[in-house]
Amino acid sequence: MADKKLVEAITSMDEDFAQWYTDVVKKAELIDYTSVKGCMVIKPAGYAIWELIQKQLDERFKATGVENVYLPMFIPESLLQKEKDHVEGFAPEVAWVTHGGLQPLQERLCVRPTSETLFCDFYKNDIHSYRDLPKVYNQWCSVVRWEKETRPFLRSREFLWQEGHTAHATMEEAEERTIQMLNLYADFCEQVLAMPVIRGRKTEKEKFAGAESTYTIEALMHDGKALQSGTSHNFGDGFAKAFGIQFTDKDNTLKYVYQTSWGMTTRLIGAIIMVHGDNSGLVLPPKVAPTQIVIIPIQQKKEGVLDTAYQLKDRLSNFRVKVDDSDKSPGWKFSEQEMRGIPIRVEIGPKDIEAGKCVLCRRDTREKIEVALEDLEAKAGELLEQIQTDMLERARAHRDSHTYVAENMEQLEETLNTKPGFVKAMWCGDQACEDMIKEKYAATSRCMPFEQEQLSDKCVCCGKPAKKMVYWGRAY
Amino acid sequence: MADKKLVEAITSMDEDFAQWYTDVVKKAELIDYTSVKGCMVIKPAGYAIWELIQKQLDERFKATGVENVYLPMFIPESLLQKEKDHVEGFAPEVAWVTHGGLQPLQERLCVRPTSETLFCDFYKNDIHSYRDLPKVYNQWCSVVRWEKETRPFLRSREFLWQEGHTAHATMEEAEERTIQMLNLYADFCEQVLAMPVIRGRKTEKEKFAGAESTYTIEALMHDGKALQSGTSHNFGDGFAKAFGIQFTDKDNTLKYVYQTSWGMTTRLIGAIIMVHGDNSGLVLPPKVAPTQIVIIPIQQKKEGVLDTAYQLKDRLSNFRVKVDDSDKSPGWKFSEQEMRGIPIRVEIGPKDIEAGKCVLCRRDTREKIEVALEDLEAKAGELLEQIQTDMLERARAHRDSHTYVAENMEQLEETLNTKPGFVKAMWCGDQACEDMIKEKYAATSRCMPFEQEQLSDKCVCCGKPAKKMVYWGRAY
Repeated sequence: MADKKLVEAITSMDEDFAQWYTDVVKKAELIDYTSVKGCMVIKPAGYAIWELIQKQLDERFKATGVENVYLPMFIPESLLQKEKDHVEGFAPEVAWVTHGGLQPLQERLCVRPTSETLFCDFYKNDIHSYRDLPKVYNQWCSVVRWEKETRPFLRSREFLWQEGHTAHATMEEAEERTIQMLNLYADFCEQVLAMPVIRGRKTEKEKFAGAESTYTIEALMHDGKALQSGTSHNFGDGFAKAFGIQFTDKDNTLKYVYQTSWGMTTRLIGAIIMVHGDNSGLVLPPKVAPTQIVIIPIQQKKEGVLDTAYQLKDRLSNFRVKVDDSDKSPGWKFSEQEMRGIPIRVEIGPKDIEAGKCVLCRRDTREKIEVALEDLEAKAGELLEQIQTDMLERARAHRDSHTYVAENMEQLEETLNTKPGFVKAMWCGDQACEDMIKEKYAATSRCMPFEQEQLSDKCVCCGKPAKKMVYWGRAY
Repeated sequence: MADKKLVEAITSMDEDFAQWYTDVVKKAELIDYTSVKGCMVIKPAGYAIWELIQKQLDERFKATGVENVYLPMFIPESLLQKEKDHVEGFAPEVAWVTHGGLQPLQERLCVRPTSETLFCDFYKNDIHSYRDLPKVYNQWCSVVRWEKETRPFLRSREFLWQEGHTAHATMEEAEERTIQMLNLYADFCEQVLAMPVIRGRKTEKEKFAGAESTYTIEALMHDGKALQSGTSHNFGDGFAKAFGIQFTDKDNTLKYVYQTSWGMTTRLIGAIIMVHGDNSGLVLPPKVAPTQIVIIPIQQKKEGVLDTAYQLKDRLSNFRVKVDDSDKSPGWKFSEQEMRGIPIRVEIGPKDIEAGKCVLCRRDTREKIEVALEDLEAKAGELLEQIQTDMLERARAHRDSHTYVAENMEQLEETLNTKPGFVKAMWCGDQACEDMIKEKYAATSRCMPFEQEQLSDKCVCCGKPAKKMVYWGRAY
């Protein structure tokens, strides 16, 4: 019965992208809904993707000197209130614990929506001297934001993430770390998730509550909507002053530290789905595919077929490989492999064995390749690399062909309404223009990219002298 | 300044074991206290131990077919109440969320103290047919129990753990999985943490709220107190009936599933401290030591010393190795290495270099061993294995020499009051005797061990015919 549901047709992505997305997350068995409104179960097929993301991201973190820690999930109300921009940004969307056991609490506690205030409270006691700096800490945990509208992976009341929090002796060093982590995120998205991103800075309007500057990576989904995929914030010494985090410098004077934070979340799984998926389901980049190769025996009851399938599995043990020896039909198994986005399917039947070959089928292009059995291991390795590279290139081509330029409001409106994608346009730097574009077209400034172009010398909105090129778009 | 604090003398464990423990967790920089009463920060040195525990435990889980998932951290009150023994056990110690954002919630949510009810709610929708069984799921997460008295790692209001939750078609299969996981835990404690444990079953009085039977592994700490180190529960079909989790079996009839759960926590870090630590601080088993070898250069400003230290580091790259090239004195560095429990210290100075040798110093025995530089890698590997083995043997010898036998209440009282350790004694199976022993001597039944002995034929308490041999003890 579970199998039957899986291979039922899913909604076409061109017909109804939102429904297609919901169908994929359910039918690829990534999540399940729960009795807790706005919270989901991440099922084995979904969680295994997260584990691969965690492992590869964590290795990259540690190579830059990051150390992992764990801080409490609760924040006393008085602590949350210490930095005023921060509390204004988060207080409306936190969950409050008011009772412990059978007793009301003396002070209510919020479930962390993010942990800047806790890290500040910790650093205040842990940092004394320049010798204690820098602190480059990270934690893997879940956070809670009481969202009104939720969607699996993209926006849920509880989600999993990592949050890095660092403290430095100088503003320059903090800025360097902020940019370093943004670049690490961007490289990770491109090299591991096969997802190209635009690197840039958020406008004042869009920056993180309490930050001096926020940097972002923005990806374009298949439907032309933008997805903020990771952010990195430089707090300057704002939090340090609010919390009193001081150190004795080499010159024997007391100074405030400079802080950063940066995070990526389970939202990345949503991004993978919406960048690479197709009308047959999920398409996973090999580097985050829990199963990279599935071997499907044809006429598996014939003598020698299953044995050969298991021999091939042993020979492919460098990869994440499975044999599907269930009693379903091969066609059914093909559909399942496609729905789950497994990068390579190996078909092996009596005729193949006789001919000393097998067939590899790519999930991304559906190309079929005949391979001599003795070449299988080498060929599978090459093909996984090729798929990883090709997926990034296809995503980049899609992004580039869906990036437009607008020089005035008419062009901006027409593009946003008829050509889903990024729109590059010049901006005067005035928030009034940003507000107007958001109000009129429901589009936001995604970022001021590091790679600036001089498209014109006038703001797309007001016509005054332009200061920055901005990527605009409708976003998840 | 941080260094100075670190090497200040810690309280002697014989003088005040509780204070010794607190000194070690603080001075080895494993934890810090927080503004959130009863919750701690797990600092890098502590969290890195947890990461090594997680990695090695998770590998063992997956080798038995366990799949990881993630379920919400909130449980609606109505869901918690569905199984009556379970809610009675946990309701008095949960934290309640009553507001989301600025609105009161229609139904309050507790922060999970354990996730049986959530898994049941999930399985109810996910299990339909015998083909969907077994489900062998696990999650790594934090849980909250509103304890009145807390101690770092041993008992805190929030702690990290894994909780496995399985569903099976038959009671036999559920029982098999319950025992399998208990044995996996015991092997892990012995082989990885170098900590011997007694495997057994809890009495009715001590079993988990809602379980049909609870199995436990019990370890003995250096001070003679017991520590419950992992538990595995067989729920029978009790939860399945309360939640309506049914499947269509091969014979086409509807049946209830049989369930288990099993967990280990960050409490294991407390166990490592209290089983292996000494008056110089932490002593880490090599398999969970974040740094296994620290190289300490002597007269490091002399030409060639630091270079050689780094060459040795490269040659030891199969291990978790660091060079301490800070400007502290060697003696200071030795004390730090001891406080942090790093298994091997390598001393290398100008004279050693001239003689083509270096000195290895074991943390556990303080034995010093001269090694020719060309033998270093092989010797270090052997020594780490030797330390791991010796630590287990010493802990086992301590446990065995602190395990006593009592045949009547006088002997039990005398032993509990004068000889801290386990006491083996026969029991009639009547809870009244268990209650009396707890009330009189503040000792609890730790477990009915799988390896039973016939010490006598009478209950230690009432003198009636004995049914079981029980391990009794005072416990953390």
